[in-house]
Amino acid sequence: MKIAIDAMGGDYAPVELIKGCIKAAKTAEAELVLIGQEEAIKTELKKYEYDRSKIKILNANGVITMDDSFSAVRTKKDSSMVVGLNLVKDGKVDAFISAGNSGALVAGATTIVGRLKGVSRPALTPLIPTKKGYSLLIDAGANVDAKPEFLHHFAKIGSVYMQACLGIQNPKVGLINIGTEVEKGNKLTKETYPLLQEDSDINFIGNIEAREIPEGEADVLVCDAFVGNVILKFMEGFGNWVFSMVKFEFTRNIATKVAALLMKKGVGNIKKKFYYNDQGGAPLLGIKGIVIKIHGNSKDTEMASAILQAEGFVRNKLIEKISEKFVNLK
Amino acid sequence: MKIAIDAMGGDYAPVELIKGCIKAAKTAEAELVLIGQEEAIKTELKKYEYDRSKIKILNANGVITMDDSFSAVRTKKDSSMVVGLNLVKDGKVDAFISAGNSGALVAGATTIVGRLKGVSRPALTPLIPTKKGYSLLIDAGANVDAKPEFLHHFAKIGSVYMQACLGIQNPKVGLINIGTEVEKGNKLTKETYPLLQEDSDINFIGNIEAREIPEGEADVLVCDAFVGNVILKFMEGFGNWVFSMVKFEFTRNIATKVAALLMKKGVGNIKKKFYYNDQGGAPLLGIKGIVIKIHGNSKDTEMASAILQAEGFVRNKLIEKISEKFVNLK
Repeated sequence: MKIAIDAMGGDYAPVELIKGCIKAAKTAEAELVLIGQEEAIKTELKKYEYDRSKIKILNANGVITMDDSFSAVRTKKDSSMVVGLNLVKDGKVDAFISAGNSGALVAGATTIVGRLKGVSRPALTPLIPTKKGYSLLIDAGANVDAKPEFLHHFAKIGSVYMQACLGIQNPKVGLINIGTEVEKGNKLTKETYPLLQEDSDINFIGNIEAREIPEGEADVLVCDAFVGNVILKFMEGFGNWVFSMVKFEFTRNIATKVAALLMKKGVGNIKKKFYYNDQGGAPLLGIKGIVIKIHGNSKDTEMASAILQAEGFVRNKLIEKISEKFVNLK
Repeated sequence: MKIAIDAMGGDYAPVELIKGCIKAAKTAEAELVLIGQEEAIKTELKKYEYDRSKIKILNANGVITMDDSFSAVRTKKDSSMVVGLNLVKDGKVDAFISAGNSGALVAGATTIVGRLKGVSRPALTPLIPTKKGYSLLIDAGANVDAKPEFLHHFAKIGSVYMQACLGIQNPKVGLINIGTEVEKGNKLTKETYPLLQEDSDINFIGNIEAREIPEGEADVLVCDAFVGNVILKFMEGFGNWVFSMVKFEFTRNIATKVAALLMKKGVGNIKKKFYYNDQGGAPLLGIKGIVIKIHGNSKDTEMASAILQAEGFVRNKLIEKISEKFVNLK
């Protein structure tokens, strides 16, 4: 098994990403191919002792930055991202992981790796924490002006993912909406509802209001990328704010500082629920290969867990299982 | 000044709503008109000592329930909600407040009270808490399939509101989007951006990612009602979850219970920020009168603060000021 890594993407490239690869290489079965500026990668690798058969370098001089437009994948052919996506396309690696420019990665993966037969659009699919564990948010970044058919396909893809990779039997699918009643919603959700209801292949439980998302009643949360992105980012911003307020209140005076000591473990438990970095990244699902987007601010732990996540996808034959659901679809 | 109250709408009608009216009547200048089933209202009022010149009853036998469709405003002419909206329309009261069915209230206010000349659509506009105070979320419940022109009008309306009622000079307007760059977004936000940019009447600061909302950089957050509703409800659900986890961690053992005592005030400070009930409700802005929606689970405090809020709107000539911005609009 071979997994390619975009060593140049994200806020902490290449330092933290390589540190994560070193960490993962200790337990991962796959050979890791670090793509990027060879000298920079070598400099980092020199800092570590590691099994040289497990980590290779593939030179790529170009870098797609966060400021680049998504169309950079057409112009920067020698970038680490485009080189990595081509490896997936050519079957030379089993997966590709990048912390780089999301728009470029989605556009590149869709055009270079290509969609699976029958899938209308691929979706970017992070797991988000809930009371019961994690729910899959699909789509959180690929299709901002979605059609009902796209959302229907996301429901199918998300169901396969949660069953194949998280072991959830008959995963519950909810449609994110502004009311629970059938007739509620905008044009998109109203037209999507019957498609989900009529598909015997998925376990559709109806509309889910945003208020209910943290309850974790739905394993798969279907929405367009605008709504998904707003939820994902609002959760991040709001969570950060809450923790900053907690910190402020805990450091007010001696009494609250004592309380902070007594609650150290408790606060840690809550933080762990939100700042989870053991669930890997967000795969772009619906394409003919495994491409995983990790957060731009990912450090070693996120990178390492994405590598193990990618291995899981390969072992669980995720792409084949998604493909099966669409190959005979009318 | 006269303010009409829907005594029959919401989860705690009429008990808590009337309690709120009694509370408000002590300081409010306005005469309150409680609309609903006379006997039920009388029974509640008997529990209190109050200035009888400040609280009147207007009998209305019908009730629009939470299960009714928005079209109930057409069929239930004798409902407390429809009676109240007609009082606003006829200029017999200065404002109407309801904790009842949102869809019906928006539809009823739009059709019965009517839109202001030049306003394409009215919007439901709650204040949401931020690090710096409050931002206005416009639209959070009226127009799920919005057009760029609607959002442009929301930006104007929201700016007037924040200046006239919250005293914010030259309020900053942000467009909720999935990226900060100009070219980011879905069709709606891409087409809305230039309209906001070209309007010298508003202080447009560009796109705001959902992650940045809690920072409070924008005083007015413009979005369609689907997105606004998702943000509002997700904040509610996510906030509830965080506080339930905090409670759980504080009650784990004797040490954490001690910490809870030491942090009682601190947790209270944070809770107060989220469970604010002193900011009134969400007015439906863009219509020819003051109609305020309060949360279905509102109790006395929310009702009382909405009454004071309504008085502020009247005193600040909010409707007239909004109207001025549109009357000469092409």
